[in-house]
Amino acid sequence: MDYDKLALELHEKNLGKIAVTSKVKLEDKVDMSTAYTPGVAEPCRKIADNPDDVYKYTSKGNLVAVVSDGTAVLGLGDIGGLAAIPVMEGKSVLFKGFGDVDAFPICLNTKDDEEIIATVKNIAPCFGGINLEDIGAPRCFYIERRLKEELDIPVFHDDQHGTAVCVLAGLINASKVVGKDVENLKVVLNGVGAAGVAISKILLAYGIKDVVLVDRYGIINKNEPKTMLNWAHEEMAQITNLKNKSGDLVEALKGADVFIGVSKPGLVTKEMVQTMNEKAIVFAMANPTPEIFPEEAKAGGAAVIGTGRSDFPNQVNNVLVFPGLFKGALSVRARDINEAMKMAAAEALAAYIPEAELNTENVIPHALDRNVAAVIAEAVAKAAKKSGGARV
Amino acid sequence: MDYDKLALELHEKNLGKIAVTSKVKLEDKVDMSTAYTPGVAEPCRKIADNPDDVYKYTSKGNLVAVVSDGTAVLGLGDIGGLAAIPVMEGKSVLFKGFGDVDAFPICLNTKDDEEIIATVKNIAPCFGGINLEDIGAPRCFYIERRLKEELDIPVFHDDQHGTAVCVLAGLINASKVVGKDVENLKVVLNGVGAAGVAISKILLAYGIKDVVLVDRYGIINKNEPKTMLNWAHEEMAQITNLKNKSGDLVEALKGADVFIGVSKPGLVTKEMVQTMNEKAIVFAMANPTPEIFPEEAKAGGAAVIGTGRSDFPNQVNNVLVFPGLFKGALSVRARDINEAMKMAAAEALAAYIPEAELNTENVIPHALDRNVAAVIAEAVAKAAKKSGGARV
Repeated sequence: MDYDKLALELHEKNLGKIAVTSKVKLEDKVDMSTAYTPGVAEPCRKIADNPDDVYKYTSKGNLVAVVSDGTAVLGLGDIGGLAAIPVMEGKSVLFKGFGDVDAFPICLNTKDDEEIIATVKNIAPCFGGINLEDIGAPRCFYIERRLKEELDIPVFHDDQHGTAVCVLAGLINASKVVGKDVENLKVVLNGVGAAGVAISKILLAYGIKDVVLVDRYGIINKNEPKTMLNWAHEEMAQITNLKNKSGDLVEALKGADVFIGVSKPGLVTKEMVQTMNEKAIVFAMANPTPEIFPEEAKAGGAAVIGTGRSDFPNQVNNVLVFPGLFKGALSVRARDINEAMKMAAAEALAAYIPEAELNTENVIPHALDRNVAAVIAEAVAKAAKKSGGARV
Repeated sequence: MDYDKLALELHEKNLGKIAVTSKVKLEDKVDMSTAYTPGVAEPCRKIADNPDDVYKYTSKGNLVAVVSDGTAVLGLGDIGGLAAIPVMEGKSVLFKGFGDVDAFPICLNTKDDEEIIATVKNIAPCFGGINLEDIGAPRCFYIERRLKEELDIPVFHDDQHGTAVCVLAGLINASKVVGKDVENLKVVLNGVGAAGVAISKILLAYGIKDVVLVDRYGIINKNEPKTMLNWAHEEMAQITNLKNKSGDLVEALKGADVFIGVSKPGLVTKEMVQTMNEKAIVFAMANPTPEIFPEEAKAGGAAVIGTGRSDFPNQVNNVLVFPGLFKGALSVRARDINEAMKMAAAEALAAYIPEAELNTENVIPHALDRNVAAVIAEAVAKAAKKSGGARV
């Protein structure tokens, strides 16, 4: 299937993918006078008197900004905000299609961290949440942290946490399938960018102790400065690799239970998988060409194999996460998407597959399953209320 | 009719007035792979190679940002961006309903001119045009001028130019009805804010020479500094009141052909109208209570009377202008909305009423007439091409 050609046709035929529509009719003078002047002044007055009324009288409560500076778009790299529009419109369409969340692309004409932060804060009033997208690491960590601190609505960098939630869900189920205790899994993760850092953090938060990170200069080791590319790597060095391992990916994989790849095509061979523990779990998510193809990983002895692709089993796809996560957060007017909410999303996503149906080729729900978002949303809303992040 | 109550009910029932919807379907793997990854990368690449392709593959070409800092909202004054959302959502809904233009509210969390300018520039990539709304004068003039200079898409402050275009159209027709030559009309305008300045400028540009402005301290006179409240008044003092008149509104109206009010309720009396020339034209647009009610103006001898209200004849309503003006500008991917385009809009709006149907109570088309926008759009597109503002 020539998706490139089909995509150009689709985008050109429809002149993009989003529209802004009216939820009210404008047929007569009464419609005009209630949707607009003079009646519209009254909800304005109410909000001016009580800012929380904005959730009652406007679309804010179901509206998410999909914000990108276009510095890390798919496999395309730094193409800028303008060229990133098709992706952000696509994301908006997924929000609507899977979560019934209204999402609007905000593609930025700046790559300056402080300008991005100021811009998002300045346009926040209309939005109930901010979804950061395709912003390069390590800048994405700083921008997200600042915005989380300075805004009172959820800010969520999907490349980080959407992927992390999905991987954790897959790992919870995969460990059941192979009969290993999740917390004792020895995990090797290759590619310490936005997704890599967030996956590591959620695995640690879930109780997995043995996480080893590998990037361009080998295993990230706090005693070896050359293994760390940036401040985010330095932070991760403090909380991973507790046994102070050194070496390259080949070395790292020896005796590991889990390989998680968010890196580059073809970095892992059958022979490397053979050095892993029995019943290894391999999530090779480089896209479109994984770090190792499922067939080869299987030949190396891997028991459960996931990729980022829809044509193999166990697809790790963020669309399983962000629509439901935001839907849940928005439903309780959450101030934040906190750790408890992300954890609840991962557990709900894992539990979505009944234990009886779990098998090596079914540890992650199907990406097109329309019922996932509502289940995640419910779990997230509950966690938000329990953890104190909810307004209602 | 209790529009306040109806408006609250409408806004609460619908949770605001806008939704973001998808123009493409997401039913199967092929849909997903063309609207999103991997196919979506191809339109991104095309745009990265040729920025103009953004109009071909995204929604930019039909998308307008309705931007406000909430400093001059309706009669409510400075209520801020959050409380202004119902108005900006309303404006978006009017754009869609009358012009089939997708418009999205951007309500700002800052009132700082430079921050507003930077923010709008930073979010411009997704938008084909910027509609500034309810930003106080004289700040609105500066912000609009800067954005027009620094962006390559149309920037239009509707409170200024929408009103100005509509008033000029009304005046063209009213002068025919009363049998006077437009260019020789003696015009008095009261209330030199956003609308007042823009109306004055378009009347001057149309060739009307005798325009006298009146604000809080009387007739604006370049030799009397106390009559000028701000730098915008100083600028206007240089190009209006050529006969150096002094005094208050009472004085100004003596012998005038036209009164234009964008000021406050009840400032004009029957007696004042009696001092105007025969067959006077009165546009008393203070809302909801005009400077003088039609009945009283008529008693004072006025021949043609317009207001901002839908329950009297000749309603001056921007909805007759901005949907068609942007529709036309977007249709030719205009870089700007220039003077020629605004003038074309005014002339098209005036000509929309056939000469045979012109009368004292019919100088401005009906605000709910759905066919106006297309006519304006055509005239504006033509003017854009002729004046060199069009990309296609």
